[in-house]
Amino acid sequence: MAEKLKGNMLIAQSGGPTVVINQSLVGAIIEAKKHNEIKGIYGSLNGIKGVMEERLIDLKKEPSSVLKKVAYTPCAALGSVRKKPSEQDCEVIFKMLQKYNVRYFFYIGGNDSAETANILNESAKRVNYEFRCFHIPKTIDNDLLENDHTPGYGSAAKFVAMAVMGDNLDNISLPGVKIDVIMGRHAGFLVAASSLARIYEGDGPHLIYFPERSFSKEQFMKDVESVYSKYGRCLVTVSEGISDENGEPIASKFIKEVDAHGNVQLSGTGALGDLLANFVRDELKISRVRADTFGYLQRSFPAIYSDVDAKEAYQVGVLAVRYATSGKLESGSVSIKRKKGKKYEVYFEPVELTKVAKETRSMPNEFINEDGNDVTKAFIDYAKPLVGKLPEIGVLKKYPVKG
Amino acid sequence: MAEKLKGNMLIAQSGGPTVVINQSLVGAIIEAKKHNEIKGIYGSLNGIKGVMEERLIDLKKEPSSVLKKVAYTPCAALGSVRKKPSEQDCEVIFKMLQKYNVRYFFYIGGNDSAETANILNESAKRVNYEFRCFHIPKTIDNDLLENDHTPGYGSAAKFVAMAVMGDNLDNISLPGVKIDVIMGRHAGFLVAASSLARIYEGDGPHLIYFPERSFSKEQFMKDVESVYSKYGRCLVTVSEGISDENGEPIASKFIKEVDAHGNVQLSGTGALGDLLANFVRDELKISRVRADTFGYLQRSFPAIYSDVDAKEAYQVGVLAVRYATSGKLESGSVSIKRKKGKKYEVYFEPVELTKVAKETRSMPNEFINEDGNDVTKAFIDYAKPLVGKLPEIGVLKKYPVKG
Repeated sequence: MAEKLKGNMLIAQSGGPTVVINQSLVGAIIEAKKHNEIKGIYGSLNGIKGVMEERLIDLKKEPSSVLKKVAYTPCAALGSVRKKPSEQDCEVIFKMLQKYNVRYFFYIGGNDSAETANILNESAKRVNYEFRCFHIPKTIDNDLLENDHTPGYGSAAKFVAMAVMGDNLDNISLPGVKIDVIMGRHAGFLVAASSLARIYEGDGPHLIYFPERSFSKEQFMKDVESVYSKYGRCLVTVSEGISDENGEPIASKFIKEVDAHGNVQLSGTGALGDLLANFVRDELKISRVRADTFGYLQRSFPAIYSDVDAKEAYQVGVLAVRYATSGKLESGSVSIKRKKGKKYEVYFEPVELTKVAKETRSMPNEFINEDGNDVTKAFIDYAKPLVGKLPEIGVLKKYPVKG
Repeated sequence: MAEKLKGNMLIAQSGGPTVVINQSLVGAIIEAKKHNEIKGIYGSLNGIKGVMEERLIDLKKEPSSVLKKVAYTPCAALGSVRKKPSEQDCEVIFKMLQKYNVRYFFYIGGNDSAETANILNESAKRVNYEFRCFHIPKTIDNDLLENDHTPGYGSAAKFVAMAVMGDNLDNISLPGVKIDVIMGRHAGFLVAASSLARIYEGDGPHLIYFPERSFSKEQFMKDVESVYSKYGRCLVTVSEGISDENGEPIASKFIKEVDAHGNVQLSGTGALGDLLANFVRDELKISRVRADTFGYLQRSFPAIYSDVDAKEAYQVGVLAVRYATSGKLESGSVSIKRKKGKKYEVYFEPVELTKVAKETRSMPNEFINEDGNDVTKAFIDYAKPLVGKLPEIGVLKKYPVKG
């Protein structure tokens, strides 16, 4: 049983941004104001880096009109960081926590951020610093263990689905082979969401490739050729993380190849799409082949978010504060579980930091088809309620004129 | 004075899609129904290719609920094509127009499509085929002569502004150098629209490069270094069409270089962004450098459109039919002019096909700053009403905590 601690709270954001990461921030701030044991509500700029550099701001002073707008604004309002604290870093951090009498620490991020929280929590025990240490989940990759899904995923998935809906129409307008490269280095949840773009018979994406399956160039060529000969066009979505049978990413294979020749380095984001497009152009002799890499737009595009995702992101912020002030838990993360049944309903549970910190999860087998080039109905059922309503697409009925 | 002709109407779409190109289609269909001299309202699938292949549909049979949805759906509902008709093609086309008694021909597209309309119009005079031949403007490039702006531009500009708003927040969250490559091969209007993303002091894009100014790598490096040393980050937007002092596109320079070494060809869309990112990474020794190429999302993303643009796109469709049935004009295009004055107001005028067909326009000098790396206030005043309302961005006030 953890004692009720009195002191200040510190919250920070870490890792890649999402469109709803500030919902969690604002949820935590607003909830914290309701708890008397929490005095000051501080934010650290750029995650633990801001703690070490003493760049702290007073979140209680933020007007609620500002907080309301911030909640619906993409990307980390406090700034973010990618940093794993060393032992020395921890020393500096605890000096600062002590100086500012921080007894409640919240870190919003993915599994790396949960690991940071866990390192701090372990380190606190060693130095006998008493505090509550909670991780608040977010990641567009949807790869946290112990969670049905993670805040940030539904909105990124909505962006991907919408982008592919539009690109499918573009590909119908001017037929050819189009390849869209989508984020998700190790987990295929985001590329899988492109399947939600399909509305009418024949709609793309016609092929989807996941980091969970080894990518064979030969099979890819056969797949594209087969779709192209059927529809006269082919829309492909691939995860940026697709890898060969030895687990080597296709993208980095290519980059090395160019490096070895002493040419311009190619570690930008367009390389994988261009590589695949060149395969198709050169070997299948199809003239109109294009590639787009959706890039950071997937995690930062304003005004496009899933309502469910925004609500849940807010809620995990609220719950982290409730868990921390419950007197029952010293540390942990908030996990999202889904109730069984037809109707979409979730519940939340505290979970140990170590359980979400180290490893990540990938797409379950039941979400990927046997050929490894599409999702299953199980995935569609899983993802639809997370993404919510998509724009209506109108298509002409096309009654032929009799000649 | 053109006679009032009785017969059928044929409408088709051509060139790169836009988000509002179907507004023009639907506007023309709905207006045509009001004119008794127009009997059948036919659509050709994939532009003039569909005429030649006799793939015509009966647009009068489309339910109005379908038309309403189609108007708000991106990309060419009739399918598009990139094709300049040869003399032989014209023969086939006129055979078909005669067969279907088409006396009203409307071609929605950019300057190439206006040229196609003009070729058909000239050809009709030679073969003594009487018809009305009108071009309906659309292009995200905003490069049609005789127009203040073109349908499709405002919505694409809105997408670009929103994407850069989000990417600016992303770049604040995780600082570094970010390069966004934006469409517009010869005209910088679209990359210029990224300037509308700026809301708060210090917001990016910090640098904007146009195809209208010769791109110097040295100046680019100096510019980036200067911004980076001031803000600790730098967000750059560049047109895909930036060229060196000899007018050679930077992108194609690079592609040739790689080809000459016998390596993988690089004609995909990511190459330019990657090239510029590599320059910065290698020469300025900045570690976090990323590039995104917005690609087709700019012209096809559903549900993001400018209200003004959608309305005007509809209106040019309506007016083309009115001009054609006026009995006063045999051919032409619809141009959009802006009234002088503070309040945004436009009027429309018929214009000869040849005037919009051959050449295109680029950004006026007064829209580009002296250094060639930003827009001027004149551009902002020009573009804002075309784009309309952008999402609200909330930013914390960041009151420091006293140590």
